[in-house]
Amino acid sequence: MIILGIDPGFARTGWGLVAEENKNLRLLGYGCITTEASTPFPARLKKIYRELGKIIAEFGPTAVAVEKIFFCKNVKTAVDVGQARGVIVLAAAENNLKIHEFTPLEVKQTITGFGRADKSQMQKMVKILLNLKDIPKPDDAADALALAIAGIGAHRLSKI
Amino acid sequence: MIILGIDPGFARTGWGLVAEENKNLRLLGYGCITTEASTPFPARLKKIYRELGKIIAEFGPTAVAVEKIFFCKNVKTAVDVGQARGVIVLAAAENNLKIHEFTPLEVKQTITGFGRADKSQMQKMVKILLNLKDIPKPDDAADALALAIAGIGAHRLSKI
Repeated sequence: MIILGIDPGFARTGWGLVAEENKNLRLLGYGCITTEASTPFPARLKKIYRELGKIIAEFGPTAVAVEKIFFCKNVKTAVDVGQARGVIVLAAAENNLKIHEFTPLEVKQTITGFGRADKSQMQKMVKILLNLKDIPKPDDAADALALAIAGIGAHRLSKI
Repeated sequence: MIILGIDPGFARTGWGLVAEENKNLRLLGYGCITTEASTPFPARLKKIYRELGKIIAEFGPTAVAVEKIFFCKNVKTAVDVGQARGVIVLAAAENNLKIHEFTPLEVKQTITGFGRADKSQMQKMVKILLNLKDIPKPDDAADALALAIAGIGAHRLSKI
């Protein structure tokens, strides 16, 4: 099973791929799709959609884990993050991938068993669970890998 | 010039096509893409994206006019309307169509020259400007036609 975790944003969309093999987790890849504020918004959405399509084609994930957005500083930001999330979910749906959704709290509870863990504790857990030497950078990619790990458990349960 | 007006929503996306020929406006078509609350959200986004793709392929619009969303009752609704708007903007961008954006106030000012016109006055203006016998139904389609009419003027200006 391979899960693609995605931390949506219109300026930065973190992504990370985790495989589960014989009950072990293995890091397959991670990164961050960035778009410039100077680029017209439709072109930014197109870039996110296409880059994600390439990642899906390259790694062939089994399912996708995406952050559920329920807090934003204002309606404008919520609509814009929503637009980015819309093309991300569409990329998964167009590839017939099941989508698992998690709030940040749910990811923390899954990864650390403790909903109040801070960002740095979460990143250390990701490093340990994936047997990495260093914490993956940037933060968006580490968050996406945490989502992918949470997705592994959720996807296993959804198939029982 | 043919403008496709779109009033975005995840449950109802109104659309309307208006052509300008020899300085006259002509109605080409209108309707509403609906999705059911019982359908998983990714499948709803896919339906909106694909239906819009079919409309673009059938009518070959010159550009698109989409409502700018800046008011929603809460963040969840803003994110969800944003997701629908994201796939709508993507459909236009994937077809290399220029996108004109209007707030509801800007549409009213363009169509009636009076920003405070109410919904029923707006719909009557759409009926008059397009030489129709009746007001187009449902409301989402009438709103989309108002956007298309506003888009005609904006697109003409953008080409000067």
